Amino acid sequence: MTTPSEEPASKRTYDVLVEDIEAGLRSGRFKIGDQLPGERILAESYGISRASVREAMRLLDAMGVLRSNNRSGPKSGAVIVSEPSAGLSATLRLHIASSRLPVAEIVEARILLETWAARTAAQHDDPAGIQRARELLEAMDAPDIEPEAFHALDAQFHLALSALAGNTVIETIMDSLRGSIRGYIKDALDALGEWPVVLEQLRAHHHAIFDAVEAKDAERAAELLRSHIVWLYEQAANKAR
Amino acid sequence: MTTPSEEPASKRTYDVLVEDIEAGLRSGRFKIGDQLPGERILAESYGISRASVREAMRLLDAMGVLRSNNRSGPKSGAVIVSEPSAGLSATLRLHIASSRLPVAEIVEARILLETWAARTAAQHDDPAGIQRARELLEAMDAPDIEPEAFHALDAQFHLALSALAGNTVIETIMDSLRGSIRGYIKDALDALGEWPVVLEQLRAHHHAIFDAVEAKDAERAAELLRSHIVWLYEQAANKAR
Repeated sequence: MTTPSEEPASKRTYDVLVEDIEAGLRSGRFKIGDQLPGERILAESYGISRASVREAMRLLDAMGVLRSNNRSGPKSGAVIVSEPSAGLSATLRLHIASSRLPVAEIVEARILLETWAARTAAQHDDPAGIQRARELLEAMDAPDIEPEAFHALDAQFHLALSALAGNTVIETIMDSLRGSIRGYIKDALDALGEWPVVLEQLRAHHHAIFDAVEAKDAERAAELLRSHIVWLYEQAANKAR
Repeated sequence: MTTPSEEPASKRTYDVLVEDIEAGLRSGRFKIGDQLPGERILAESYGISRASVREAMRLLDAMGVLRSNNRSGPKSGAVIVSEPSAGLSATLRLHIASSRLPVAEIVEARILLETWAARTAAQHDDPAGIQRARELLEAMDAPDIEPEAFHALDAQFHLALSALAGNTVIETIMDSLRGSIRGYIKDALDALGEWPVVLEQLRAHHHAIFDAVEAKDAERAAELLRSHIVWLYEQAANKAR
């Protein structure tokens, strides 16, 4: 299907800018925190249209590589960041929406990664990481905590436990998987209509998981995490029926 | 930093279109294979500029959700596809370039997912999947095979083995991880300058892995895969030194 293209040049110029950012990051010419020149200057230096520059910026923003600041003047340039979870979550969420990636398989993947992290964490010493998880646990014990606030802390707690394994790639993927089904699980829990009961169960699960991780009981931590995620998913699945 | 934005409306309209595609995929209003209307019609129906439509299309294309065909006239609309690996690989590659996701951790993640897949595959019966892997293995045995052709078959072989576990999410992530470091490992192997020797080692590894998978010897398959990936990575790391 090589029908003559309407605007092949625009597609090419757009790729050139994205590829140059990637090459620049690899070589060290660009690094995190650097501010890119404004749209007009980029368009001139790459010899492409401002519309093409804007398309590339939007894409890199969505991938979590650039943060546009939407300002004009000398501070108008986007800043290079690295937020892999944001970019991966957005992509995963779209593919889950198209049913190409089933929720049950996302849950299985999440169990694999989180139980691996729990087992691996038991082999490391990371008192600061343990302390971070403990603080989140205690914040979730606050009386009369709102579901919204609880869910946010809950996500950070799982992430803090995964971080103990010391692999940012797996931590990022885990966070992306969780982020991609967050809405799904949260809606189902909200719909249960017995928040105080659910809250007590969630707290009990989290405390037991934390205790096993802190005691470096790898198998128990992994098994508690697995059953916690399965239980969570079953609540959601029962509600969906 | 809530400095007045230069073009907040454009950012918002752009998001609206992407979110509507996601909502449409979720509800079944859009499905894979559907052709979207052309740029002009989309701009009119969403009440946004053609430039904003084009930005959204570029983004969805990069995420592997749309395939633009660059045609004009009645067949100009993009088609909805689902190519999660393409979108995830591109995002992962950019973050590896920025050194936020180290190659060694990508390798550890790959080992976790591929060995899990090998163990899980032993619990399933999938003669068609085994046959597919066997055909790739035999194609890699062709005398005088070019490195380029071998690497392409090699990638497909690893993917075929992972597919035996029956989890497309993990298969997709595995493929994305592999894709994101493919250039890194291929360059290093090419640079070894002893292709016939490397070729024989790769073939021997693949045959041993396949035999263990076919025999449903889960632990042996997982261990062979692990040592194969570690060996491959060591070749690349030695060369980089």
